Amino acid sequence: MAEKNTIEVCFTPHSFPLFPHEERIVVVIDVLRATSCMCAALNYGVGKILPVASITEAKDYQSKGFLVAAERQAQKVEGFDLGNSPFEYMKPNLKGKVIVFTTTNGTQAIRAAREAYKIAIGSFLNLSALCDWLSTQHKNVIILCAGWKDFFNLEDTLCAGAIATKLGESGAFETSVYDSTLAAKYLYEKARGDLYKFMQNSSHYNRLSKLNLFEDMKYCLTPDQAPIVPLMEGNYLVPNGHK
Amino acid sequence: MAEKNTIEVCFTPHSFPLFPHEERIVVVIDVLRATSCMCAALNYGVGKILPVASITEAKDYQSKGFLVAAERQAQKVEGFDLGNSPFEYMKPNLKGKVIVFTTTNGTQAIRAAREAYKIAIGSFLNLSALCDWLSTQHKNVIILCAGWKDFFNLEDTLCAGAIATKLGESGAFETSVYDSTLAAKYLYEKARGDLYKFMQNSSHYNRLSKLNLFEDMKYCLTPDQAPIVPLMEGNYLVPNGHK
Repeated sequence: MAEKNTIEVCFTPHSFPLFPHEERIVVVIDVLRATSCMCAALNYGVGKILPVASITEAKDYQSKGFLVAAERQAQKVEGFDLGNSPFEYMKPNLKGKVIVFTTTNGTQAIRAAREAYKIAIGSFLNLSALCDWLSTQHKNVIILCAGWKDFFNLEDTLCAGAIATKLGESGAFETSVYDSTLAAKYLYEKARGDLYKFMQNSSHYNRLSKLNLFEDMKYCLTPDQAPIVPLMEGNYLVPNGHK
Repeated sequence: MAEKNTIEVCFTPHSFPLFPHEERIVVVIDVLRATSCMCAALNYGVGKILPVASITEAKDYQSKGFLVAAERQAQKVEGFDLGNSPFEYMKPNLKGKVIVFTTTNGTQAIRAAREAYKIAIGSFLNLSALCDWLSTQHKNVIILCAGWKDFFNLEDTLCAGAIATKLGESGAFETSVYDSTLAAKYLYEKARGDLYKFMQNSSHYNRLSKLNLFEDMKYCLTPDQAPIVPLMEGNYLVPNGHK
């Protein structure tokens, strides 16, 4: 019998250094909304995404003529081309383009994982495609939740729970040694019947409700709308299978 | 209407510095088994407990003639007087005594919280007594889970969820702004029908099962066996109401 791989859930970038992560695939998740945007964009036909951690870097790229997406505190930063709504990335004029991308939590989580064997991007939008791809890699996996400013958040944990559950059912992954994986699976089990309703007490739902972003939230919580796997190749995110 | 207080759950000592905690009561939880032992001991009649973080400090106190309890990796450290089973603390010869105490996670969590307004000790054993006491304090509360070597663990989170649920029902505390509190409450809701059964997939259950510590686990997961609240006064833990 082939040796099974492990799958672990890390709740925040702050905790990530505690997890051994070399030689592992790290799946970065920021459901509301950075990694959902990345999946939506690359699925729609955007060429590549260059994640950068700071506004300063983003400005520097903009001055060189790049298209730049920048979000802080759930809103588009003034003076930039795009914000953090997945619908903004489904425009014909973006097809084939390179987009520079910085957000409050997601792009920092990608940076935190830079020493991993490989970085993949996860969200509900690519749940099945991601799990199918991970099942063919024969590598241990850590799911890194971007959280909110280094605090635990519910939506990323639910998505991590969905991935861990699906991979567990595939038979190629063994039971976790960390209770965080177990907790994520239990929370997903409790929420899966109606993710959107379950989320309505959460801190991020309240933050985004005040900005009237209900459609964004509904879309980001709907599985399998963008069946690709964004992977870091060098400094860029490209869809799996990209040549 | 009196202003409501907040109640937050912090999953690990590693995350604790991110939470504002001055002027708050910090409830330290290490269900399996440090804070359960502390509750059991002070309820039985032990005089005071002096928590120390290191084995070196513990040895120093032993050489001065103190009774010393020391646990590492779930086992009593050789050469010390007591380990980390609550039943060890229910012996007539310990009544009125001072016990020096060091454990893998619990005593470190107490140290992490040293700048709090007050430190209280929580476990399932003193669930109702603790909530009753907290309801009379008119202070914001942070529940600090000791976890396992800075990783999230299930049993401390369930106990935190039980406390947050009970305090929420009392009407004196408002809804949390952190998703960690929400997650702890959801997990407790899922587990409360049979805590012991729910725990059987957890990492700590497996660790303690190998040492045949089933009775310890059953006892530590049974609410309201030790209706007192251990509080830090200076360097010592004493029961509330102690003069």
